[in-house]
Amino acid sequence: MSDTALPPIFDADFQHHFHDLLEWRRDVRHFKTDPLPHGMLEELLDVANLAPSVGLSQPWRFVIVDSPERRTAITSNFEQENAAALGDYEGEKAKTYASLKLSGLHDAPVQLAVFCDPDPDQGAGLGRRTMPETLAYSCTMAIHTLWLYARTKGLGLGWVSILTPDFINQALDVPENWQFIGYFCLGYPQQNDNVPELQRRGWENRHAPEILRR
Amino acid sequence: MSDTALPPIFDADFQHHFHDLLEWRRDVRHFKTDPLPHGMLEELLDVANLAPSVGLSQPWRFVIVDSPERRTAITSNFEQENAAALGDYEGEKAKTYASLKLSGLHDAPVQLAVFCDPDPDQGAGLGRRTMPETLAYSCTMAIHTLWLYARTKGLGLGWVSILTPDFINQALDVPENWQFIGYFCLGYPQQNDNVPELQRRGWENRHAPEILRR
Repeated sequence: MSDTALPPIFDADFQHHFHDLLEWRRDVRHFKTDPLPHGMLEELLDVANLAPSVGLSQPWRFVIVDSPERRTAITSNFEQENAAALGDYEGEKAKTYASLKLSGLHDAPVQLAVFCDPDPDQGAGLGRRTMPETLAYSCTMAIHTLWLYARTKGLGLGWVSILTPDFINQALDVPENWQFIGYFCLGYPQQNDNVPELQRRGWENRHAPEILRR
Repeated sequence: MSDTALPPIFDADFQHHFHDLLEWRRDVRHFKTDPLPHGMLEELLDVANLAPSVGLSQPWRFVIVDSPERRTAITSNFEQENAAALGDYEGEKAKTYASLKLSGLHDAPVQLAVFCDPDPDQGAGLGRRTMPETLAYSCTMAIHTLWLYARTKGLGLGWVSILTPDFINQALDVPENWQFIGYFCLGYPQQNDNVPELQRRGWENRHAPEILRR
C-alpha cells in the first residue's frame, strides 16, 4: 500500500449511485458531434489501464483512429458485414434488423480500436497457461472500465463488432498477430436511457440471470 | 426510458470515489472465512446481469459451488495445474512463483464458476456473426461488474484461471458445450491495498498503457 493512502469506504450513497451508473450505461449509437474536452481521451485510457489483467500482463493495445481514410475504410467494412448479417434474417425479424442503427461511425467524434497482444512478455505467462483467452478477457475488462468511467463524464461508448477482424488489422496497420477485440465510438450521446436500445426497439428483452447450484 | 426515472448526474465527488474503486479493486487471494450476509450473493448476481452483452444475449451462466466434494475436486485440479506451471520457470523466477498465493480456494466462503452459452437463442445472433468471441467477452464484463460492485460492499473477488476447462465442466456437471470462463473466490479480504499483489510480491509492475495513433 502506498504510504499516504487509506482504504476508501464506499457508503450506501455511493453504492446507490454506482448502481445507477450500471443501470444507465448503455451501448450508444446516436452521438452528438461535439468533441471531447482536451485531455479527456488520455484520462479515459489511463483509467482503463487500472483494469484487472491476467498476471498483471496489461495486454491491451489502444489505437486512436483519426485518419478520415482509415475511418472510411472501416465504415465500409461495417456496412458490408451489416448487409451480410441482414441476409440471415427473414420476415419481421429482417424488417426490425434493417431498422436498427448499429453503429455511430458517422457521428462519434472519437473512434478507438482495441487489440490484444497474444503473447506479451509482461506477466511472464502467469495465469494463462491453460487459458490463453484470459488475455483477451483482460482487454475486455479494460474496455468496460473505460466505458463506465466515460459514462460518469457524461460520455457514451458504442461497441462495433460487425466487422472483419483481419481487415481491421490491415486497415490500421498494426501487427498481424495482434488480436482484434473491438472498435469503439465515443462521444456525447444524443439521449440517456435506462433501457437497452435493442429492447426499446423490439429486438430483444432483458431477462433474469440463469443461476445453477452445485 | 421508464416513466419515473430521470437520468442521473455523476458529480465530481462520485467520479473521484469511482476512481478510488477502480484503484483499490484488487484480485484477492487472502480471505477471511466470514460468510456473506443473507441475500448478498443473489444481489451481486442481479447486478452482474446489468452488464453489456452482444445483441442483448446475456450469455452468462452462473454456477454457485457449495458441494465440498466438488470444491475439493476443483482445488486438486488447481494444485496440479499450478505445479505444472511452476515447472515452466527457473531460478529466481521459479522461487518467486512458488512463493505466490494464487488462489483463495481454501478460505473464501463463496465459490462461483462462470460459463458462456456458445449459441444462445437470446439476441438472435445480432453482433456476433463475424466475432462469436463477443459472447465470452460479454460474460467477462458481467464478472467485472460483479467484481466492482462487490468491492463497494467491502467484498473481494479472486479470479482463478489455473485450471483445466474441460475438467471444470465435468466436475460441475454442466453442459459440455458451455464455455468455461473462470472460477471465482468471493469473500471479505484480509486486507485492502491499492497496489496489485503481484507487484507487491515482485512478480511484475504496472506500466503506462500502450497507445498508437492512426
